[in-house]
Amino acid sequence: MSRYWSEVVHHLTPYVPGEQPRIEGLVKLNTNESPYGPSPAVLAAIAAATDEALRLYPDPQSHALREVIAAHHGVAVDQVFVGNGSDEVLAHVWMALLRHPAPLLFPDISYSFYPVYARLYGIETRPIPLDAGFRVEVNDYLAAGPCAGIVIPNPNAPTGIALALDALARLVRGRQDAVVVVDEAYVDFGADTALPLVADNPNLLVVRTMSKSRALAGLRVGYCIGQASLIEGLNRVKDSFNSYPLDRLALAGATASMRDDVWFAQTRARIVASRARMVAGLEALGFEVLPSAANFVFARHPAHAGATLAAGLRSRRILVRHFREPARIAPFLRITVGTDAQCDALVAALGEMVGA
Amino acid sequence: MSRYWSEVVHHLTPYVPGEQPRIEGLVKLNTNESPYGPSPAVLAAIAAATDEALRLYPDPQSHALREVIAAHHGVAVDQVFVGNGSDEVLAHVWMALLRHPAPLLFPDISYSFYPVYARLYGIETRPIPLDAGFRVEVNDYLAAGPCAGIVIPNPNAPTGIALALDALARLVRGRQDAVVVVDEAYVDFGADTALPLVADNPNLLVVRTMSKSRALAGLRVGYCIGQASLIEGLNRVKDSFNSYPLDRLALAGATASMRDDVWFAQTRARIVASRARMVAGLEALGFEVLPSAANFVFARHPAHAGATLAAGLRSRRILVRHFREPARIAPFLRITVGTDAQCDALVAALGEMVGA
Repeated sequence: MSRYWSEVVHHLTPYVPGEQPRIEGLVKLNTNESPYGPSPAVLAAIAAATDEALRLYPDPQSHALREVIAAHHGVAVDQVFVGNGSDEVLAHVWMALLRHPAPLLFPDISYSFYPVYARLYGIETRPIPLDAGFRVEVNDYLAAGPCAGIVIPNPNAPTGIALALDALARLVRGRQDAVVVVDEAYVDFGADTALPLVADNPNLLVVRTMSKSRALAGLRVGYCIGQASLIEGLNRVKDSFNSYPLDRLALAGATASMRDDVWFAQTRARIVASRARMVAGLEALGFEVLPSAANFVFARHPAHAGATLAAGLRSRRILVRHFREPARIAPFLRITVGTDAQCDALVAALGEMVGA
Repeated sequence: MSRYWSEVVHHLTPYVPGEQPRIEGLVKLNTNESPYGPSPAVLAAIAAATDEALRLYPDPQSHALREVIAAHHGVAVDQVFVGNGSDEVLAHVWMALLRHPAPLLFPDISYSFYPVYARLYGIETRPIPLDAGFRVEVNDYLAAGPCAGIVIPNPNAPTGIALALDALARLVRGRQDAVVVVDEAYVDFGADTALPLVADNPNLLVVRTMSKSRALAGLRVGYCIGQASLIEGLNRVKDSFNSYPLDRLALAGATASMRDDVWFAQTRARIVASRARMVAGLEALGFEVLPSAANFVFARHPAHAGATLAAGLRSRRILVRHFREPARIAPFLRITVGTDAQCDALVAALGEMVGA
């Protein structure tokens, strides 16, 4: 506490990211990182950029990176906005596009940073409950009345459940009065992307990260795609905040990553295969596993509390994520899909605990 | 324009950074970058960090970097806040510490990002005119009445003129009602630092960047130092915005930079010596040069307009910065101190134009 703080600071409840422990030998399945290192082309591009040119500012417009993203997704360069991780992209989206005098709508069980941004920028929120099967019900958003905007993670986190393209289309078309942000942090692991809807819907913004499917959590690069007028709003805020959020090395690495389709397809396929193996192992132990389209699963055991299982895994040097709140998800563990060996270690450790 | 923009977006006038042209062979003296590459230890540390660990998130608290900064300046770790360039640090300072219902005070001629942040966060501003010699007059700030805070760049930009420690102390002690931000982006080139005042003044925040004296503009690292309660306010905002603004490579490089005192002292001395050489050359051509404590000089010629000289230099492939506004500084050029050879090229080109 300090008398010098701005009023808003007293009311902030910051987001708490998953632990980044500095302990060797952990099986780290708590923050949805890729178990595989980034493309070798990324490391080579960073190495090539590690020279005396670091004395120079980066390109404030991140032109080369935005060009390769635009080409990859078949959109125009002025439809692409990049930032320091999708977290920074989302923060600017809240400020630039979702700060309106009405409540912001998002699922009650979702990425817990969403209400944190809202508090930072003084945006009212109205969480919309997932249905009994932990699914997003589009009709709830269509019927919700005036709103500041709608945020749908697809697939959702921490549930892993995806919404199909036709449902997303119904939402985006039915709410032309509001910006609809589709947060596709995990889309590459099996969900439909909303990108084909961008051309016809000036209210749609699709957010991506390179932290998960591109194995670059340590490089901090995210982006979003929408019609040029939405992107211009984001640029105005970004250029009033920090001209150069992406450093030269992040630009070099991210650009190389977007060009390496082979590495991308291979690692994605491996993670999807490991997910199936992990789900089978968990189900054999009696776990209920929600249908995951992400690089993590959300699972509960009918006879064992989530907190107890998370603590037991931790004592076995395996980290997973457990959320105490809301109460409805307290029985669950959110488990990142690792290598096959890590998935097997996780299942074996849980087997000891649930006595299978 | 878009009907989806938040109200504030319509009123933003973003900061325009100096050009980063993609043209080879330019003498680039327009953005106050170092003419020397970063310490070899920095490049080695980045190379060592360029590996599969990029798949993992960075340390959200940037602990190792904050420890080495704290040790370097003789303060505690909880007195250090780091960000994606001092631009991001300043943005968070505006949000966390300067958003109060009174005008924010800063020099009328100063870093032109200050009013941009204020508009982003809805903070009223009251620019305080520099005196006839382009100097900050502390008494003006002491007598200004209630304020949201005070921002003093020391040395000031684009003038390069520094304020002495006793004047800063008088300001900080005389305005305990407000946070005083001393922006020391250029302090390493010859000004007094306000850091010795931090221990006794809970209202003082000192902001630094690694972009200038550490030759790391391309890596995006800045920091600030103040008493722990101010830093806690900044952390609350940062953790409500982006958990990990510094990527693994920036953390590795910046940490190595703070450890290399020898490189730092050598390059700083070279730039200070080149500045003296450039000033002598300009004065021999009839330029008036403000007394600079920075890695740039601010100079005007009695017989030639600033815009004309800037355009003439540009046609000779030399970039400097020229500000059209306010009118009082339109006659001036802001010229970054380069290598001796670059300084000589600049002076020779100006010599052709002013006919010496």
